[in-house]
Amino acid sequence: MPFNVPEVPEKRVVIVGAGFAGFTLVNKLRGSGYQVVLVDRNNYHQFQPLFYQVAMSGLEPSSICFPLRKNFRSDPRLFVRVAEVHSVDPLQKQIHSDIGILNYDILVIASGASTNYYGNRSFALHSIPLKSVSEALYLRNRILEDFERAVLVREESTQDLLMDVVIVGGGPTGVELAGSLAEMKRHIVPKDYPDLNAANMDVHLIQNTGRLLNGMSENSSRVALEYLKEMGVHVHLNAMVERIESDSVILNSGRVIPTRKVIWAAGVKAAPLPGLPEKAYNRDNRIIVDPYCRVAGTTDIFCIGDVSYFPSPKYPNGLPGLAPVAMQQARYLAKLLMRQMSNRKISPFNYLDKGQMATIGRSKAVLDFGRFHLSGFFAWMVWLFIHIYYLVGVRNRIVVFINWVWSYLFYDQALRLNIKPYSPEGHPNSSKKSND
Amino acid sequence: MPFNVPEVPEKRVVIVGAGFAGFTLVNKLRGSGYQVVLVDRNNYHQFQPLFYQVAMSGLEPSSICFPLRKNFRSDPRLFVRVAEVHSVDPLQKQIHSDIGILNYDILVIASGASTNYYGNRSFALHSIPLKSVSEALYLRNRILEDFERAVLVREESTQDLLMDVVIVGGGPTGVELAGSLAEMKRHIVPKDYPDLNAANMDVHLIQNTGRLLNGMSENSSRVALEYLKEMGVHVHLNAMVERIESDSVILNSGRVIPTRKVIWAAGVKAAPLPGLPEKAYNRDNRIIVDPYCRVAGTTDIFCIGDVSYFPSPKYPNGLPGLAPVAMQQARYLAKLLMRQMSNRKISPFNYLDKGQMATIGRSKAVLDFGRFHLSGFFAWMVWLFIHIYYLVGVRNRIVVFINWVWSYLFYDQALRLNIKPYSPEGHPNSSKKSND
Repeated sequence: MPFNVPEVPEKRVVIVGAGFAGFTLVNKLRGSGYQVVLVDRNNYHQFQPLFYQVAMSGLEPSSICFPLRKNFRSDPRLFVRVAEVHSVDPLQKQIHSDIGILNYDILVIASGASTNYYGNRSFALHSIPLKSVSEALYLRNRILEDFERAVLVREESTQDLLMDVVIVGGGPTGVELAGSLAEMKRHIVPKDYPDLNAANMDVHLIQNTGRLLNGMSENSSRVALEYLKEMGVHVHLNAMVERIESDSVILNSGRVIPTRKVIWAAGVKAAPLPGLPEKAYNRDNRIIVDPYCRVAGTTDIFCIGDVSYFPSPKYPNGLPGLAPVAMQQARYLAKLLMRQMSNRKISPFNYLDKGQMATIGRSKAVLDFGRFHLSGFFAWMVWLFIHIYYLVGVRNRIVVFINWVWSYLFYDQALRLNIKPYSPEGHPNSSKKSND
Repeated sequence: MPFNVPEVPEKRVVIVGAGFAGFTLVNKLRGSGYQVVLVDRNNYHQFQPLFYQVAMSGLEPSSICFPLRKNFRSDPRLFVRVAEVHSVDPLQKQIHSDIGILNYDILVIASGASTNYYGNRSFALHSIPLKSVSEALYLRNRILEDFERAVLVREESTQDLLMDVVIVGGGPTGVELAGSLAEMKRHIVPKDYPDLNAANMDVHLIQNTGRLLNGMSENSSRVALEYLKEMGVHVHLNAMVERIESDSVILNSGRVIPTRKVIWAAGVKAAPLPGLPEKAYNRDNRIIVDPYCRVAGTTDIFCIGDVSYFPSPKYPNGLPGLAPVAMQQARYLAKLLMRQMSNRKISPFNYLDKGQMATIGRSKAVLDFGRFHLSGFFAWMVWLFIHIYYLVGVRNRIVVFINWVWSYLFYDQALRLNIKPYSPEGHPNSSKKSND
């Protein structure tokens, strides 16, 4: 069964994935003269850097998501299809998906990355990932449910199991989560759960190297560590997780940390489309591209964002999996495709490193810009400003801004709601009888 | 297993249900000297009058929900427990729930109402209820999914099945839903789904009596009907639904309306606690109360809100199931309990009818206040103002206000996102692999 997309004389660009790469590309191809079909499994673009704030009840999912169709109104040649893409057939120039087959003239793979459990089944089974807004919602509901459960039990050890959190991975997501949980322990738990002893809530952060925020400067790593220790987070450096069980984490040192809540922020792996020639994938399963973001050995398939492997003299292991890389590649590729239409040439893609940052908590952030390092309140303001700037949608920016001002003034996350959609098949949450 | 609630010398008031009745009562009992335990299956209060706007992607669930614990910080004698209450044992003075047994000195049943399918299994099986924010979310996601499905099919008849909506019940909820769907058809569908023919989307409203909004004046009924017809809604008066199948609604006239989406807004039934003496329940299963909101034949059990049966000369069939009734009863009961503590008397409860209203669409509402009727833009402004006023939480009021101004200016519902929480048991939505 073919996709229901009009057949037109214009060339068709098919983009798989509506993350930073795919979403930016589509917007840049508006009015380009190509027919563009964007395929994603969701009907929205998600703003990954703020997932952790959804999980911490600080932001609504809708504030960091943007409906794809809303952005596509201005050009009748842009199409959205909500589908799961299974594979590509480069010979037939087709993609295969759960809603059928679609022909392309030009294919752009921007399918991103997914959680990496390094093949350990116990990690996947007993930890909570945070690579989508759906997972962030699940984590939010779990945290709230576990507090409610803790209120019901009398044994302190069981309460501890329910309140304690172990975060695996000391990158930006892990650091940001640890900081927010420490603030929740300090400002929210004592007020919301007077029956619980907030001091019993322990937050552990496990990092397998000697410093946090590996991608950033030594200086930022050190400051982030100080911040977290100050906030009462137990940071375990040079520690590896050996095994996760239903009520504990076992480190390679033999240490056992009892907990029922483990958050997995320890790494991602590429989520490529199968079907390309074997030599197109590198050892990490990322798709190898040439300096023009073109898949090695093809003429009509491009690959951008986290799933692409783009080595350069400065980055022999490939460009890092960061939003700025994805967005710069997307803008470059839009230009390339537009020039290709009029047979003009373009120079190779060049990544411009604009620096990195991470936030740890209220008035606490670290920022690297070349040799320049910044931390504290000003870095935090820069972090807030840049994240609002890159959010998609004016309404989202306003709502996030209000939420942040609110939290800042009142030390409060407004959204501590355990809401799940009703499911007609008799889900535990289905409210056949209503207490309201 | 007993609830984990501290045993104190103060008398314990247990309130079942955190709807308008229970939530108002708890707030009024703050600082009263009673130990108060509020039990609900959710950790939030939900603002029922705006469920339909969540279903229409106009508001976020969090904007019309309020975390219970947030309201309970000011009095250390107030407790929240998230639990499903099964029954009451008036002899032992206990309630039984999924988290154990709880003793009470005074019990307040405010367990509300649930969807009434009048015993017809086909109604329950093939229609979507709208009595909780979870169900509103489900409806929102279904509407968005069905549009995406319609985009994929080529046969107009199948597209129609997916786009058409039948609403059963011409009360305020049914009328408000029909109006919003008509506006979605006009302002959203043509822009978001250029591949679909918006004119093919039919909205049907089925009412079993001769007029809409039975609880309101003849004048308001007539105006509402005119508004809906003007907006292109197919209103079927004096029509009964005989049967609902997976792809059609069959009326008692024999008429068959093909559709895959039926919204059930045709009535509610009380959701009482079992365990009271048989004579405490009336024919409709509502709990009979005396003029002091006390359950007939008991001294220490009260019942307020939709689940209570409070007949009066003006309302021989009991007070209507409206938010103002529930809130007035709650305020009255708080006063009664406080006077009871100091052995002072109180006169019987008296319901003060402040009028009724319903909104049909942009600048279109009807309002009854005694003999005074209002419709159009001004009535609509009053409706908006009153709903914002009664929303719980300053932040919620600000966010709802911004959303409404936004929709008004841009003819746009901002939240067309089909987001579901990830479920670790391999739910279809679980994003083991991520397209972003």
